[in-house]
Amino acid sequence: MPKRVDHEERRQKIAEAVWRIAADRGLEAASLREVAAEAGVSMGRIQHYFASKDRMILFACEHMVELAEQGARELATAADGTETPRSVLRGVFAQTLPLDEQQRVGTGVWLAFLNRATGDHELAAFIRRAWTGTRDLVVEQLRRAQDNGEISAEVAPEQEATALVALADGLVSHLMVGHYTVEEALAAVDGQLDRLFG
Amino acid sequence: MPKRVDHEERRQKIAEAVWRIAADRGLEAASLREVAAEAGVSMGRIQHYFASKDRMILFACEHMVELAEQGARELATAADGTETPRSVLRGVFAQTLPLDEQQRVGTGVWLAFLNRATGDHELAAFIRRAWTGTRDLVVEQLRRAQDNGEISAEVAPEQEATALVALADGLVSHLMVGHYTVEEALAAVDGQLDRLFG
Repeated sequence: MPKRVDHEERRQKIAEAVWRIAADRGLEAASLREVAAEAGVSMGRIQHYFASKDRMILFACEHMVELAEQGARELATAADGTETPRSVLRGVFAQTLPLDEQQRVGTGVWLAFLNRATGDHELAAFIRRAWTGTRDLVVEQLRRAQDNGEISAEVAPEQEATALVALADGLVSHLMVGHYTVEEALAAVDGQLDRLFG
Repeated sequence: MPKRVDHEERRQKIAEAVWRIAADRGLEAASLREVAAEAGVSMGRIQHYFASKDRMILFACEHMVELAEQGARELATAADGTETPRSVLRGVFAQTLPLDEQQRVGTGVWLAFLNRATGDHELAAFIRRAWTGTRDLVVEQLRRAQDNGEISAEVAPEQEATALVALADGLVSHLMVGHYTVEEALAAVDGQLDRLFG
């Protein structure tokens, strides 16, 4: 029997190699050659999967967002039925923040993707779609809370979702340079949720 | 008479050369040698002012923050007496956002400083102080508005200031990748000010 090749798994290993190089030396250093070496695959293999460095980096960003979205979906559909709009929102924002060393590394890579996106239209378009997805999820939870009578009908879900998502994204920068502690950042999120949920 | 040398002006020219290189090629490219060439001064002169690349970059960041703080102070002390806590806050947040092409370039350089700060303790310490200054200014305006009866006494100025500053910083990222238009970003700021000022 021929050796079974799991293409998806191999592509994920390549994405993870991009993340590691970005975390250690910046995205500029993530050439096809360097990533091949880091992932332990041949240049030919990398080129088989990705037509260019831009395409490879786009995939590495997509894979990061996919894991985050998977985490958010799991929060939103907790099997034990204990999840509430507020707990889902809290979980999604906590997931955005670099609360431990591992998340700090991931956040640094995310910020590198953001930085690159100002000069890479396809990457920027993908990140816009990802952010729209996060905002939609927040709008959905706010609407659910309004239907439940947990938050006032006077709240404008779209406007609050924009503000909440931007709040979390702004706190990321403050945490990365140590301006706030993890506790202070979470208190800022909780303060806004307290305000909405009364 | 000896030629009068304006050291402060020369240092500012060097800071501006750092910004231009950072905007075009990234802060990594801003070596003492490249900055000397860009600013049109000798290597000896650069070394006379700055002991290292780190010190030069710190100064370039300080100079950027100083100009922003000067803008904020001017907003807060408008000579015609028309400024209100709300107009000062609106002006400070609008100043944070990349609303035109020139501000986009400046914001890109600011984000490069933020990125570098995760590995440069002195730069991080400076940025923390700068952010504390912005937050203090926001707290002060919120207190002034409370004293005037413009916002509810139940609002916690420190907590709202943390959220408002993070909101503006988060909107910066969304604007840089084109996720929101300038109008949408300003509407998000105005929405939060509407909420506070009723």
